[in-house]
Amino acid sequence: MGVVIEGITRADSGHVAELSELGVATVHEAQGRKGLLAPYMRPVFSGRRVAGTAVTVSVPPGDNWMIHVAIEQCQEGDIIVVAPTSPCTDGYFGDLLAASFMAHGIKALIIDAGVRDVAELTAMGFPVWSKCISAQGTVKETLGDVNVPIVCARQIVNPGDIVLADDDGVVIVRRDEGGDVREKSRQREQREAEVRVRYGNGELGLDINNMRPRLAEKGLRYLPGATEE
Amino acid sequence: MGVVIEGITRADSGHVAELSELGVATVHEAQGRKGLLAPYMRPVFSGRRVAGTAVTVSVPPGDNWMIHVAIEQCQEGDIIVVAPTSPCTDGYFGDLLAASFMAHGIKALIIDAGVRDVAELTAMGFPVWSKCISAQGTVKETLGDVNVPIVCARQIVNPGDIVLADDDGVVIVRRDEGGDVREKSRQREQREAEVRVRYGNGELGLDINNMRPRLAEKGLRYLPGATEE
Amino acid sequence: MGVVIEGITRADSGHVAELSELGVATVHEAQGRKGLLAPYMRPVFSGRRVAGTAVTVSVPPGDNWMIHVAIEQCQEGDIIVVAPTSPCTDGYFGDLLAASFMAHGIKALIIDAGVRDVAELTAMGFPVWSKCISAQGTVKETLGDVNVPIVCARQIVNPGDIVLADDDGVVIVRRDEGGDVREKSRQREQREAEVRVRYGNGELGLDINNMRPRLAEKGLRYLPGATEE
Amino acid sequence: MGVVIEGITRADSGHVAELSELGVATVHEAQGRKGLLAPYMRPVFSGRRVAGTAVTVSVPPGDNWMIHVAIEQCQEGDIIVVAPTSPCTDGYFGDLLAASFMAHGIKALIIDAGVRDVAELTAMGFPVWSKCISAQGTVKETLGDVNVPIVCARQIVNPGDIVLADDDGVVIVRRDEGGDVREKSRQREQREAEVRVRYGNGELGLDINNMRPRLAEKGLRYLPGATEE
Amino acid sequence: MGVVIEGITRADSGHVAELSELGVATVHEAQGRKGLLAPYMRPVFSGRRVAGTAVTVSVPPGDNWMIHVAIEQCQEGDIIVVAPTSPCTDGYFGDLLAASFMAHGIKALIIDAGVRDVAELTAMGFPVWSKCISAQGTVKETLGDVNVPIVCARQIVNPGDIVLADDDGVVIVRRDEGGDVREKSRQREQREAEVRVRYGNGELGLDINNMRPRLAEKGLRYLPGATEE
Amino acid sequence: MGVVIEGITRADSGHVAELSELGVATVHEAQGRKGLLAPYMRPVFSGRRVAGTAVTVSVPPGDNWMIHVAIEQCQEGDIIVVAPTSPCTDGYFGDLLAASFMAHGIKALIIDAGVRDVAELTAMGFPVWSKCISAQGTVKETLGDVNVPIVCARQIVNPGDIVLADDDGVVIVRRDEGGDVREKSRQREQREAEVRVRYGNGELGLDINNMRPRLAEKGLRYLPGATEE
Repeated sequence: MGVVIEGITRADSGHVAELSELGVATVHEAQGRKGLLAPYMRPVFSGRRVAGTAVTVSVPPGDNWMIHVAIEQCQEGDIIVVAPTSPCTDGYFGDLLAASFMAHGIKALIIDAGVRDVAELTAMGFPVWSKCISAQGTVKETLGDVNVPIVCARQIVNPGDIVLADDDGVVIVRRDEGGDVREKSRQREQREAEVRVRYGNGELGLDINNMRPRLAEKGLRYLPGATEE
Repeated sequence: MGVVIEGITRADSGHVAELSELGVATVHEAQGRKGLLAPYMRPVFSGRRVAGTAVTVSVPPGDNWMIHVAIEQCQEGDIIVVAPTSPCTDGYFGDLLAASFMAHGIKALIIDAGVRDVAELTAMGFPVWSKCISAQGTVKETLGDVNVPIVCARQIVNPGDIVLADDDGVVIVRRDEGGDVREKSRQREQREAEVRVRYGNGELGLDINNMRPRLAEKGLRYLPGATEE
Repeated sequence: MGVVIEGITRADSGHVAELSELGVATVHEAQGRKGLLAPYMRPVFSGRRVAGTAVTVSVPPGDNWMIHVAIEQCQEGDIIVVAPTSPCTDGYFGDLLAASFMAHGIKALIIDAGVRDVAELTAMGFPVWSKCISAQGTVKETLGDVNVPIVCARQIVNPGDIVLADDDGVVIVRRDEGGDVREKSRQREQREAEVRVRYGNGELGLDINNMRPRLAEKGLRYLPGATEE
Repeated sequence: MGVVIEGITRADSGHVAELSELGVATVHEAQGRKGLLAPYMRPVFSGRRVAGTAVTVSVPPGDNWMIHVAIEQCQEGDIIVVAPTSPCTDGYFGDLLAASFMAHGIKALIIDAGVRDVAELTAMGFPVWSKCISAQGTVKETLGDVNVPIVCARQIVNPGDIVLADDDGVVIVRRDEGGDVREKSRQREQREAEVRVRYGNGELGLDINNMRPRLAEKGLRYLPGATEE
Repeated sequence: MGVVIEGITRADSGHVAELSELGVATVHEAQGRKGLLAPYMRPVFSGRRVAGTAVTVSVPPGDNWMIHVAIEQCQEGDIIVVAPTSPCTDGYFGDLLAASFMAHGIKALIIDAGVRDVAELTAMGFPVWSKCISAQGTVKETLGDVNVPIVCARQIVNPGDIVLADDDGVVIVRRDEGGDVREKSRQREQREAEVRVRYGNGELGLDINNMRPRLAEKGLRYLPGATEE
Repeated sequence: MGVVIEGITRADSGHVAELSELGVATVHEAQGRKGLLAPYMRPVFSGRRVAGTAVTVSVPPGDNWMIHVAIEQCQEGDIIVVAPTSPCTDGYFGDLLAASFMAHGIKALIIDAGVRDVAELTAMGFPVWSKCISAQGTVKETLGDVNVPIVCARQIVNPGDIVLADDDGVVIVRRDEGGDVREKSRQREQREAEVRVRYGNGELGLDINNMRPRLAEKGLRYLPGATEE
């Protein structure tokens, strides 16, 4: 504990920008269904999508000191990702720190703990995904780490990884996989657009995907309902 | 496992229509406080009330194959009710399936698991009540059942039962009890309207319901507070 | 069980009014980070802040009888605070009781259990903070207590204490500490206003609060990141 | 509410006796992986296996009155299965009721709530599977139902169904499926005995079940680890 | 924060000794079903009953410093009761502190958080009731309070109160109510002994407690089961 | 998905053997309080301590196919560590697989999900740490991964890492840190032995660790209790 890694390698900013146009669900699918943070991570206000590069912060329970340390390590376009070393619901972050984040070009906060001042955060338009909302404050007494690999909401996040968040949750894309994932995501979007039209016309997934033979092979039986009345 | 019951008997569509004008809380009370799904079932977006007839789907954890099978079994006015065989938070349903549901006249989804594409679902106006929101996708490998009795969010749901859902949650009315429940619900609404006026005038429930004698009989004591300062 | 304390001593109404202009997070900090209800207590609708004096109610699981008893004990400006004697998610309160509360000048409900009729409560503008939303009704069979000290959402609430609630949660201020807390809250607000400006200008908390020497003393090490690619 | 169904039809006692020699895991598998109560249901003391016929009890939260009513409906060999109408952790049952159960030949209690006097229950050797242990008592004020279908720990239990419980949990076998399930369970036990020997000899499931071709077909790739040091 | 109250008034040691012969469930009933800690509080090892006088400790999340401070405030026969200011699962206590507790005549630990070294604690025979078991250590950086009223596992505990714990959980008896509660507990035990005999003889609670008339008055209906097969 | 990494590099077997003589709490402390799995991971039976090298398995919810694949990748002394890609309580493992594990010299199973046949596992003496116990079976339909980094119970586990488990939980030591951690653990044990003696003699942690000056500096105040009676 007590380590700050400086000068991390970040994902390609072009890839980040391109991924920001895609949804979390699409990207998560496109990269093989990995990297999705636990579904208890919810946005403080809805309707926003952000993408950025992760600056990771490991914090003790009830202690937000290292978030202050992390700000200095950020570049324009970063997203700070915070995880406590044991589960904690305290409010590590409020409108003051949000002002500091915004002044440094930090695009969002992802925190596996609580935040507060949610009315102010909403008014400021600073996007946060958190485990809960709590006014319970934190202390500044114990060191943690900045820019080490962390587990946030059940997923590994490495410094420099791509973070994509929207109303469906938060997904992590490995630093060097942005281009590949973007490509697969676009292909997926195209396929989905076609399927959407066919579904809208009333075609069944059973037919579009030719599921009937395999269902039969697995033994699916169609039985008549009891005739009643 | 692996059974689809076809041609189920559905509740009377007139009863369903009439129940759709009543709230979940009212109907739940009127039918003797039974059939309410667990309160963790929440709407993806608020402000909607829907009623329909249940097509039930039992699914394995992390596998949404049977939802595709179920669509074909639906009629205009049905509501698909999905329960996994063991607890699961995965996102079984998104905007593509919603397009398919809408094309087939399915009025809502009730699912004791997760859904995704919630911004799109909200924009489409397709109502969903779910346990959580998660972008985590599912596979199509293992059979389940369609139109067998299931336990969804701690309640029994039979195919053809009436499903009523609004911002207070989801309640199930047995297929053949719609008329009776509608009648009792209306009576309840009338009584409540009268009580609402009296409450608004400042009358106490203690007096309206003549509670004081029974409270005294049970031994309620009124004691003076300590005189301080 | 079965006791109603009448004629409780309430906090100074001027202090209550002044605290209502301050946020829950600020007041919680100003009084030394105590008295915050557990973060699972959430508003039924957002955007409201209320302050009032507590009338406390201890209720059995699934029984709301004592809420009726409590209304009569209320004065204009009170907030009813309800806690069940064992955890319960039932809907103890709906639009009818809300009409009664409003007629008696009761400003809000804080309940460590469920409420229902949330669309109606929102339309009426009656503010409620609760553990959950549930249409499951309650009975009126067993006594509880009014105006005894209770534990609500992990905090002690005494009758006459000040209750302050907003989108960040609910905080309790002891009856005789309102003036002191208001003073400290205002001082805190001033300090925060200054810090907010400095943060907005890009100054770091590390510098504003002179954290660097203490971080060094604790052993914080800055290490270069691996040079990659 | 308020109904006691008398003279229920019970599963064949011979089938019950034969199932009592089989484990919960085996029976659950043999009947197609259905009917298993949620895993939070745990035995008060370990090392016991019981089978019996269900007498079902639906109770209000915090009210055990109907358990008294249910005892009279029991026959030698029954197991009482209790579920509250909303989640509750109260201690509905202790050593006194256990004495009454034992005097009436009731073989076990399955309860989706709490029990108490666990040291005494253990000393008496009366087996209980419950959601939790709690000394919190209950009242006797509100009716429930006896011998109606209930949902206990996420599963439907009908009166007269077979209940089998051991250290792995609790499984329900439908009243008329005992013979079929017993047969399939025995076949399963035989197959498992053979597999156990082969596993003990070091044979792999991959080979015994000829999994390799299907794994390859699904696309499983074997890659060399990074050569390090 | 940061207060140690010295020289607290303790409950009568004779009352404590007498209560130690009674069970938690009995005492909880006898004092009107109040004071029971939440059922998630479980003993590290079973089979022990202890009674003592509470020395209360309020601790920050992840910080056990104040437990060291509290030991010095203890007398022979005290029980230390610890609650964090926000929920925490860390292991605040292990075999070293247990050695210190035992040397000072402290009879048990009640902690609404985690403990570790459970094999050693069991071997030492030092009884602990805790929320969980966790090897995660704590720091010594932030002050808390000793001998102020706290909320532990949803109950108020005052310094000097009587703490009684066994396999059923933990109950708090107010400092000055020990004699009265002991008296009522003994009466209850006598009544229960009589009822136990009658239950053992097969008498029903329905008859012993003359429940039938009131059940009928509430509307309980006995219906015949469907005649099947 | 669908990758098996063969020929992983394992931690030094000598270091593993030496760590097996140390407790989880000690090792966790010695390595700077990192690597501890979440406290919900509990042993199926108590009293065992094991150390081994991790073979990691990422599995879909409700699908244990990859555990069969993983066995073939194991060497004598390995411990299989399993994590599902979304939370799941199903019973992935029972006595048959345990027989296979034992035949291949696998020393334990660590699984962030359920297991079954716990009476048999206990009789066989095969140690398992799991999230829960459940008889609910799994399928063999969908690929996962073997020997990729996984998140198990909130911690990163890499293939070849050291796994140490006892009654206090499970801790992961990085593959190349075994020697260093062993050294620090031994030093810690020595220090603790000395402190244990001093604690046993009644010395206070306040004095042994010279805490009083720092407590005073932080502002700790000792106040007299109210003189009562």
